[in-house]
Amino acid sequence: MAVGLSGLPELYPVPGIRLGTARAGIRKLDRRDLVVIECASGTRTAAVFTRNRFCAAPVVVAREHLSKSTPRALLINTGFANAGTGAPGEADARTCCEALARELKCAPQEVLPFSTGVIGERLPIERIVAGLPGCVAGLGEPGWSEAAHGIMTTDTVPKGSSRQIQLDGKTVTVTGIAKGAGMIRPDMATMLAFIATDAAISKSALQACLETAVNSSFNRITVDGDTSTNDACLLLATGRAGHASIESASGQSYETLARAVGEVCTELAQAIIRDAEGATKFITIDVGGGASESDCLEVAYTIAHSPLVKTAFFASDPNWGRILAAIGRTPIPRLDVDRVSIHLDDVCVVRHGGLAADYTEAKGLAVMKRPEIRVRVDLGAGAARATVWTSDLSHDYVRINAEYRS
Amino acid sequence: MAVGLSGLPELYPVPGIRLGTARAGIRKLDRRDLVVIECASGTRTAAVFTRNRFCAAPVVVAREHLSKSTPRALLINTGFANAGTGAPGEADARTCCEALARELKCAPQEVLPFSTGVIGERLPIERIVAGLPGCVAGLGEPGWSEAAHGIMTTDTVPKGSSRQIQLDGKTVTVTGIAKGAGMIRPDMATMLAFIATDAAISKSALQACLETAVNSSFNRITVDGDTSTNDACLLLATGRAGHASIESASGQSYETLARAVGEVCTELAQAIIRDAEGATKFITIDVGGGASESDCLEVAYTIAHSPLVKTAFFASDPNWGRILAAIGRTPIPRLDVDRVSIHLDDVCVVRHGGLAADYTEAKGLAVMKRPEIRVRVDLGAGAARATVWTSDLSHDYVRINAEYRS
Repeated sequence: MAVGLSGLPELYPVPGIRLGTARAGIRKLDRRDLVVIECASGTRTAAVFTRNRFCAAPVVVAREHLSKSTPRALLINTGFANAGTGAPGEADARTCCEALARELKCAPQEVLPFSTGVIGERLPIERIVAGLPGCVAGLGEPGWSEAAHGIMTTDTVPKGSSRQIQLDGKTVTVTGIAKGAGMIRPDMATMLAFIATDAAISKSALQACLETAVNSSFNRITVDGDTSTNDACLLLATGRAGHASIESASGQSYETLARAVGEVCTELAQAIIRDAEGATKFITIDVGGGASESDCLEVAYTIAHSPLVKTAFFASDPNWGRILAAIGRTPIPRLDVDRVSIHLDDVCVVRHGGLAADYTEAKGLAVMKRPEIRVRVDLGAGAARATVWTSDLSHDYVRINAEYRS
Repeated sequence: MAVGLSGLPELYPVPGIRLGTARAGIRKLDRRDLVVIECASGTRTAAVFTRNRFCAAPVVVAREHLSKSTPRALLINTGFANAGTGAPGEADARTCCEALARELKCAPQEVLPFSTGVIGERLPIERIVAGLPGCVAGLGEPGWSEAAHGIMTTDTVPKGSSRQIQLDGKTVTVTGIAKGAGMIRPDMATMLAFIATDAAISKSALQACLETAVNSSFNRITVDGDTSTNDACLLLATGRAGHASIESASGQSYETLARAVGEVCTELAQAIIRDAEGATKFITIDVGGGASESDCLEVAYTIAHSPLVKTAFFASDPNWGRILAAIGRTPIPRLDVDRVSIHLDDVCVVRHGGLAADYTEAKGLAVMKRPEIRVRVDLGAGAARATVWTSDLSHDYVRINAEYRS
């Protein structure tokens, strides 16, 4: 199913990070559905959460715990999102944290809870608590691949990315895992991503590093325009690599680390789109020549969210009129339609707002049949640009989302 | 297919309006695909066109002709939208107007062209011109039903609405036809609607009457959030009814006429949604308790456009978490989630931002199985309200739009 994805790449262990999983039977039997990520003492944490105003209980509790102490462990369950569950749901999230804290002999506030799955139903606390000893017993630094499997919901493949860089002659690792796969769009979606590094870096520089990376990766993907109540992206830094600590968000070491974190985030974000619900195409939408980056983003998202454009991609139909119509309805301040051009990969389809003279349906069709397609729009209004990644809208998208709870 | 629609209602002829159709073989053989609507001398015209910045050639020409003279005829073809066709397409639209003007012995500027269908391909001018004599030969006041058939594209049923009212003791008729069915959303979509009345009314009052009606009908429906390059809604007034002429947009006669026009537009707009591409459900989204009408509209459209909400309706799945998540991501200035309530018909699902205590899945399921469902959201922030009508997202929506050109 997933477009251009074939299993996990090698995921390098991160010194100071141990992972353990269990099959707790949370919503389905015999599925790896519970994950613990334990971080060594002194680990610093940066986090970005959903901007949806209906926050799930675990998001509320995780934010609160982050503001009060330094996390020692992350607890992730799939099956149920513990969202829309009110005060009882919040109590459930705290109960889970307390149970893991007992196992790890830390304070409940040092545990951050994450949940993903069906909204509006209570967590099966007993099964989660019963699964924790198994997670803890299996904790180990090589656990990334199993953890990548353990956080999957409607994902068809696990998602991970890893880089190694040199800082002051020391090898520094950045490794991350993520889950999608629907309800995805900018500003964090039903998406969880956990990234860790053994770099030594101040908390403020770590947060800057994460926000920069998220802004050009997870916040540039969209499947269906829906955002979720549970999104979170964490970046943990254990400081074990032995290089000189990075104290601010500048300088060569910071830039090198930030580039690696950015690459890991982009690879994870693209993997989410490649494995989007029902996706048969991976589509890159590049909008350039804009008066501002926000104009370019608006146009890119309007194209990316258009069900008519997305069904045309699914059908391999070079129905460029639908792309044109999507651009034309984007609410940006100025749009001179006579300056707009559109390419599908290297085929110029629209030039100066009209059909390109040398365009043929055969050329368009040849591009549209590819599993990976780049739509390039030039607005002819300036020098700004932006890129968004999205998927097509297929029969399977409808099937998956119509049958999700059955 | 169409939800709660069973054929055309009685469409009363409008004195002074004659309609004729032909099977011109424009894109498919043996299909009524060409319609002429002729209006008597002295008929006044109000019009609303797409706000998409890529306007189809016929929209450009119709606007120009409207600004220069008083229309005597409308010429509508299906099959091809004559959009994205540049200067040659504009010349084609003018050629069509000239051909009909010759038949009707009027000036080309007195003809308004309308096209709907595939974007980006040229009109088959010869076939259209060859079809015109048949249209003109068949012109007659009872032609509304055939015209309603003649403007259909992916519509599965023809759409019409008719009212008769009394003004100064005289019977006044308002009759309209429309076509949908995808690429629909506020601000005019791939939608054509032609409404006529024999009321006597000034041009400015007629335009006000149309804009008011459109704003609460065609501009309150959405299938997929896409708008088209070709939308138009026309209101013709022949002045034949014999009552005292309405000179301004106020007074009892104006209000009576405006109500009838509003009812016709609402019935047509709802018919478009009932027959939306792939629709199996007709969904009314009422958002109340807002700080402003625009807040309510934003929330209503965010729910209406969510593919996850729409697939849940298709599946008859009371997955209210998706509605909650859509509300939560609506970009309105203030949203106090603890004040939000949601009803599905009469079943309270969410109260004070959380699951209602007396809600059961069985109650939700019973509502979701109905073909017509009302979602009522209360934001608890004020007294403003707004209503939007939409459809579900089904397998057939994807099939229809993936196969549209095949």
